[in-house]
Amino acid sequence: MGHKRLTPSPTLFPTPVVLVTSVDDSGKPNIITLAWAGVVNSEPPMIGISIRRSRYSYASIKKSREFVVNLPSEEMLKGVDACGIVSGKDTDKFALTGWKALPAQKVKPPLIDECGVHMECQVKQIIPLGSHDLFLGEIVALHVKEEVQKKAGGVDIAKCHPFAYCPGAHEYWNLGRCIGDYGFTKGKP
Amino acid sequence: MGHKRLTPSPTLFPTPVVLVTSVDDSGKPNIITLAWAGVVNSEPPMIGISIRRSRYSYASIKKSREFVVNLPSEEMLKGVDACGIVSGKDTDKFALTGWKALPAQKVKPPLIDECGVHMECQVKQIIPLGSHDLFLGEIVALHVKEEVQKKAGGVDIAKCHPFAYCPGAHEYWNLGRCIGDYGFTKGKP
Repeated sequence: MGHKRLTPSPTLFPTPVVLVTSVDDSGKPNIITLAWAGVVNSEPPMIGISIRRSRYSYASIKKSREFVVNLPSEEMLKGVDACGIVSGKDTDKFALTGWKALPAQKVKPPLIDECGVHMECQVKQIIPLGSHDLFLGEIVALHVKEEVQKKAGGVDIAKCHPFAYCPGAHEYWNLGRCIGDYGFTKGKP
Repeated sequence: MGHKRLTPSPTLFPTPVVLVTSVDDSGKPNIITLAWAGVVNSEPPMIGISIRRSRYSYASIKKSREFVVNLPSEEMLKGVDACGIVSGKDTDKFALTGWKALPAQKVKPPLIDECGVHMECQVKQIIPLGSHDLFLGEIVALHVKEEVQKKAGGVDIAKCHPFAYCPGAHEYWNLGRCIGDYGFTKGKP
């Protein structure tokens, strides 16, 4: 089996694909698609998102210190891809995609109604890293649509039709099937 | 469509599942399975991983300021789950799983030979957040096995058999199929 050393690049896959909503100075909502996103803490629950300084959402979130992480379904893929390319500076992405904005409960940026899960976040730290700044947000409100909830509690992943991004291939992939519950081995592989 | 507001918890899915290797003071290698991991910067390429202070890997990485992110395949699922449960304090996880350690090029922690992709990282910042500390590491070496590379360059995701974790459901899911390349809409959904 041959190993090959390549020029370092972010080759961590699969990553989530999230739609992050924000509002600018005038209160206008915007959407940016991000794959540089992840959970960073459990108690309190926190998410980290990294944004290039040139993006329109960057200044909005830096100033307002609020954002919402919306999880899209596979049916939304074209809109998700488009929202990662065009700029909110000159495009109304809600008009572009036809998605509906719903008011959030604790922050100004809206929820995207077509998404099954929304996490309202307040920025706690902003860490400049080079090309991107890392925004660390505490989840202050979590919404899960009833139709994607399990009766026993928790999210019914199959009903969410989630997808992932694969850096290193520049591809979106959907999920296949559940292959195990966390802890199923009880520590014995 | 009913919305339901729940107690905030990290409900970002899918997340990657990574095997992070480290060495302790005595030079003994260890493995920890993490889902709180993500890309945080492109130039320079950086990865963020969050670890509870009680974990054995926490002190090792804090002291050595080095770790390797190894991407497992579905065939490794049982070992991956087990390495997230047992502690390196009293268990040799290479012996437990039967995986083979290979020397890295720029850092002390080993590569896990069974993984197709390895990223050697040097810690640049450690950010305490509550339950977890966030370690921000720069990727200083990237290895992709020849058998999971595309001839044209880049990673052949299908050959990696990657899988993801879904917080909110506590489930591991494999990937299904490629549903699009980044930028395929050219901004027109």
